[in-house]
Amino acid sequence: MKGTLRSVSIIGTGMIRFGKYPDKTVGQIAAPAVLEALAEAGASREQIEAIYCGSMISGTMSGQRVARELGMTGKPVINCENACSSSASAFREAWINVASGFYDMVLVVGVEQLTRLGGGTLPMEIEDIEAASGMVMPGLYAMRARRYMHEYGASEKDLAAVAVKARRHGALNPLAQIQEEVSLEQVLQSRTIAEPLTLMQCCPMGDGAASLVLCATEAASKYCSRPVKVLASELTSGRYMPGFRDMTIPEVTVRGSKEAYEMAGLGPEDIDVAETHDAFSIAEFLYYEALGFCGRGEAAKLLREGATSVGGKIPVNPSGGLLSKGHPVGATGAAQMVEIVRQLQGRCGPRQVEGAKVGLAHVTGGGIYGFDHGACAIHIFAR
Amino acid sequence: MKGTLRSVSIIGTGMIRFGKYPDKTVGQIAAPAVLEALAEAGASREQIEAIYCGSMISGTMSGQRVARELGMTGKPVINCENACSSSASAFREAWINVASGFYDMVLVVGVEQLTRLGGGTLPMEIEDIEAASGMVMPGLYAMRARRYMHEYGASEKDLAAVAVKARRHGALNPLAQIQEEVSLEQVLQSRTIAEPLTLMQCCPMGDGAASLVLCATEAASKYCSRPVKVLASELTSGRYMPGFRDMTIPEVTVRGSKEAYEMAGLGPEDIDVAETHDAFSIAEFLYYEALGFCGRGEAAKLLREGATSVGGKIPVNPSGGLLSKGHPVGATGAAQMVEIVRQLQGRCGPRQVEGAKVGLAHVTGGGIYGFDHGACAIHIFAR
Repeated sequence: MKGTLRSVSIIGTGMIRFGKYPDKTVGQIAAPAVLEALAEAGASREQIEAIYCGSMISGTMSGQRVARELGMTGKPVINCENACSSSASAFREAWINVASGFYDMVLVVGVEQLTRLGGGTLPMEIEDIEAASGMVMPGLYAMRARRYMHEYGASEKDLAAVAVKARRHGALNPLAQIQEEVSLEQVLQSRTIAEPLTLMQCCPMGDGAASLVLCATEAASKYCSRPVKVLASELTSGRYMPGFRDMTIPEVTVRGSKEAYEMAGLGPEDIDVAETHDAFSIAEFLYYEALGFCGRGEAAKLLREGATSVGGKIPVNPSGGLLSKGHPVGATGAAQMVEIVRQLQGRCGPRQVEGAKVGLAHVTGGGIYGFDHGACAIHIFAR
Repeated sequence: MKGTLRSVSIIGTGMIRFGKYPDKTVGQIAAPAVLEALAEAGASREQIEAIYCGSMISGTMSGQRVARELGMTGKPVINCENACSSSASAFREAWINVASGFYDMVLVVGVEQLTRLGGGTLPMEIEDIEAASGMVMPGLYAMRARRYMHEYGASEKDLAAVAVKARRHGALNPLAQIQEEVSLEQVLQSRTIAEPLTLMQCCPMGDGAASLVLCATEAASKYCSRPVKVLASELTSGRYMPGFRDMTIPEVTVRGSKEAYEMAGLGPEDIDVAETHDAFSIAEFLYYEALGFCGRGEAAKLLREGATSVGGKIPVNPSGGLLSKGHPVGATGAAQMVEIVRQLQGRCGPRQVEGAKVGLAHVTGGGIYGFDHGACAIHIFAR
């Protein structure tokens, strides 16, 4: 049956600069991103048949709030929550609804307003054993960093170099929350959040929105001179692993990427540009390896060689990634896709990955209860 | 393209008795419902390819928490939020994923733990003008009740009779939160919540879970001797209506039901049994009319004649409805479907609607910002 699915393409993208917008509503944050995506697609609000909204903690009925803001009410709206993978999950549902032929054109929007929280780390549940033990995200990634350094001889400087690269890319992205280069010394000297992770190795708190318009590939050229095809849309959740687990192997990303590559009929060597979930510096190293961009223990070397910088063999996070572009949770998955689509369309100016034909977006989140991660979404796109 | 969708059937249902379970986790509340649905389907946890979870305010990653509780981790999990329509929205996504051929067997679970809130009405957003004006749900429905009484001459006794019927049906349902018949006098004499609505005309606060297993109809008889087909799966959102609107016409249900009937190729006269969103007594009257079970202003008469009682022409809410069965928000849509499926399978004992062949489940919720309702889902099923 899977053979009867239609090919789906992205015909419009929109995104606001990530930042802190505590005085706006969720609808006001999302509206410019949606309007930009519609304008790029040359599609009217009436042509959108359904709205798929991803958001984690910005209140109930986020999609309806966005629709209200834009005069797009009266359509089916599905709100998806999957922690950091919320809007990538919304995209996945949008994709199958177009691929199945049920809808011809739909809108995806990811939006989050973390400034509602008043700072601090994300809320966890009292039943989450790890969170109750103090192992919130920075602590969890700090342990992963220590173990990785122990196993593979990576240094604190290697970790800090991830943030230097992120900031170098982010400085070229007018939509990044932080657009300022930093030196290795500055990263190392910023205050410690969870040893060995310093402030600049942790993604900032912020608000944001990103949006995409999808339609069947067969109709895409009517709307867009450079549509981008969805080659793979993969979503999975982590396996619960009581007892020992190797914290340097993100099982859900390893498994999810295998399935995504299989769906696309491609391998890691075919990826020209990737956005990965670098919520912390060490995360980027773990995902280089989990996504197959290098072997186990080779991530620091890959970075050192410049392979993952713009101009390198496999540029990762040309947008600045979560570390520099920001990480308004529910908006992140959609924002990664916006970057990849624009890279494949050759529209990224000084941070453009030359000749990029195939791109990958990887997002993973919601580490609860001994899960590696509760939801991981990997999408592969091609021009 | 819609012609290429596969027919989908329900092969397993599960539900716990709705009630107050403040000491349990979300996973613990949902687990028995899921296990029952799997057992009915004769399906193993391994056969489930994806989990669609609906919940409104029970915390992030509800579906992953349920999966963790049951040893079902490592599968795709999508969490849908659409206020009262959350698990009906999750069902809708589950349905299209099977109908498209992407998955062969999936699980739907709706779960909510309202006791987390410590009582009171549902949280609204500060930006919701109506909520800020004090027009929370009981107030909104009270206004609708007054207008309806004014327009059509319905009396306070007519409204109270909805609760009497709900309690009469609920007393026959071992899964209802409240299983106690009441007299018209008791309903009228219970304390006023929002005039003219008394306590017994408002659904109770509670926790609960319900679950369904879906597969392609072509494979359903392998698992279930009495599979139930999905004839229509309709989801839409309300239209924003500034200025005057007739509060006695639930526009989203009128429009949604038309689309659902069209998808099923049926009309209201073909429905043998229905579960509707009777969060307040007046709501049931409005939905009789919106769903086409009677003409405008005829709802009280329809009830008085006994047409909507078990044994009548079009029994509505044989489960006891939200008023008696309870309304743990995210669980409600799935619970309605469980009732309809079991009615169509002839398994409902003293509240069985004899010979029921076609059933309808209607859920609507999230009234924000001048919306009639933010999300309405209508499903039509047949044996």
